Amino acid sequence: MGFSETHQAMTALNRMVLAALISHNIPTLEVQPSSCVVTKSGRIEVIETRPLEKLLEIGFVPVLYGDVVVDSEKGFAILSGDQLISSLAIRLAADRIIVGVDVDGLYSADPKTHPSAHLIHRITMPELKRLQHVIGEANVTDVTRGMLGKVLELMPAVEHGIHTTIVNAAKPNNVYKALKGQRVIGTTIEGGLVDAKSS
Amino acid sequence: MGFSETHQAMTALNRMVLAALISHNIPTLEVQPSSCVVTKSGRIEVIETRPLEKLLEIGFVPVLYGDVVVDSEKGFAILSGDQLISSLAIRLAADRIIVGVDVDGLYSADPKTHPSAHLIHRITMPELKRLQHVIGEANVTDVTRGMLGKVLELMPAVEHGIHTTIVNAAKPNNVYKALKGQRVIGTTIEGGLVDAKSS
Repeated sequence: MGFSETHQAMTALNRMVLAALISHNIPTLEVQPSSCVVTKSGRIEVIETRPLEKLLEIGFVPVLYGDVVVDSEKGFAILSGDQLISSLAIRLAADRIIVGVDVDGLYSADPKTHPSAHLIHRITMPELKRLQHVIGEANVTDVTRGMLGKVLELMPAVEHGIHTTIVNAAKPNNVYKALKGQRVIGTTIEGGLVDAKSS
Repeated sequence: MGFSETHQAMTALNRMVLAALISHNIPTLEVQPSSCVVTKSGRIEVIETRPLEKLLEIGFVPVLYGDVVVDSEKGFAILSGDQLISSLAIRLAADRIIVGVDVDGLYSADPKTHPSAHLIHRITMPELKRLQHVIGEANVTDVTRGMLGKVLELMPAVEHGIHTTIVNAAKPNNVYKALKGQRVIGTTIEGGLVDAKSS
C-alpha cells in the first residue's frame, strides 16, 4: 500500500509541473518511470527509452521524476531523479546536463544553516571523490545537505564527457539562461577530459 | 498541445480508479501506456512489459487505460484500452479476459435506443466476422454503438484461445463474480477451438 500511496503523491507534484508547462504552450508529456523502469537493488536494470526518444524527435519536452519502481531483488525501490538524469543523459547521448536546485550549487557546507559556507564554482572528479571519502570516513551526515549525493549520482554522466552544471532554479530566468548557454552562477562538474586539459 | 492536454484529461479518470482501489486497500499502480508503448499507424509496435510483469509477480493490480501514445508513422495516435487488453493478454499468457462495460454485453442493436434489441449470449468468430462484413458493406454507423468494434479488437486474444467475456460492470458484484468464475449475464466470445467442438 505504501508503494501505491507514495507513487500517487509523487505524481501530484509532477502534474503541477506539467500543468505549468502546458499553460505556457510547451508541448509536454510525463514519462512515468514506474511504467518503463525496473531496478535491481535500487540501480536501473531495465529502462525502455523508445517512447521518450520519439517524443524528443517530434519536439516534445518529456518530464520524468523520482518515482517508486519495481525492483527485481527488493520488490520495489525509490528511483531518484538524479539517477534517471545520469542514466538517460548517457543513453540518449546528451550534450549537457543542467540541474536546477533551490541553492546556487554545491557549497562547502549547507548554506541555509552555515552563513560562512562558500559556493564551489568548479569541482573536478578527483576532488569529488576525495570529498566523498572524507564524508564516508567521518561517518557523519552529509554536510552539503544531500547535494554531494546528487553530484555523485551525476558522476557516470560526467565520466562520459557530458558537461554538467548545477544552477539555482529558484532565481528567475536562471534555467533559461543556462539552457541558452549563457553564463550563470552555479557549480560546474569537470570530467576527466576537461580536468586533464586544464591541469 | 492537443496531445499534452488529451493525455492530462485521460489520466484524470484513471486517478479516480486508482484512488478507489487504494481506498479499498488494494495495492495498485498505474502503468502509463504513453511511457512504455510506441505504435505504428495506431497498432502497438513496441511495448515494454517488464515493469508490469514484476508488478503482477509481487501481487499488485496494475491499471492501464486508453492513452495518446507516440506513433512512429503518424507522430502520435490514440491507443484504445481494448487493443491493450488483447495485446497484453497474449503477451502475458492470460487465462481469461473479463471486459466490464455499461450494458450487459453485445446486443443486436444499441439497447439504449432500441428496446427490442436482444443480448447475444454467445458469439463465435465466424459470426463476428459476418457481422463485421455486413456492417462494413452497409457502410453505416455501427448499430451496436461501438461494442462490435470493441469485440473485434479482442479477436486476436480470442484466436489465441483466451476465454473472453463481456459483462455489465455497472451492476454490483458483476465483475467480482466474473473474476471468481461464477456465471454472470453477458456475452462470451467463442474462439476457433470452442467453435469446432460445439459444431
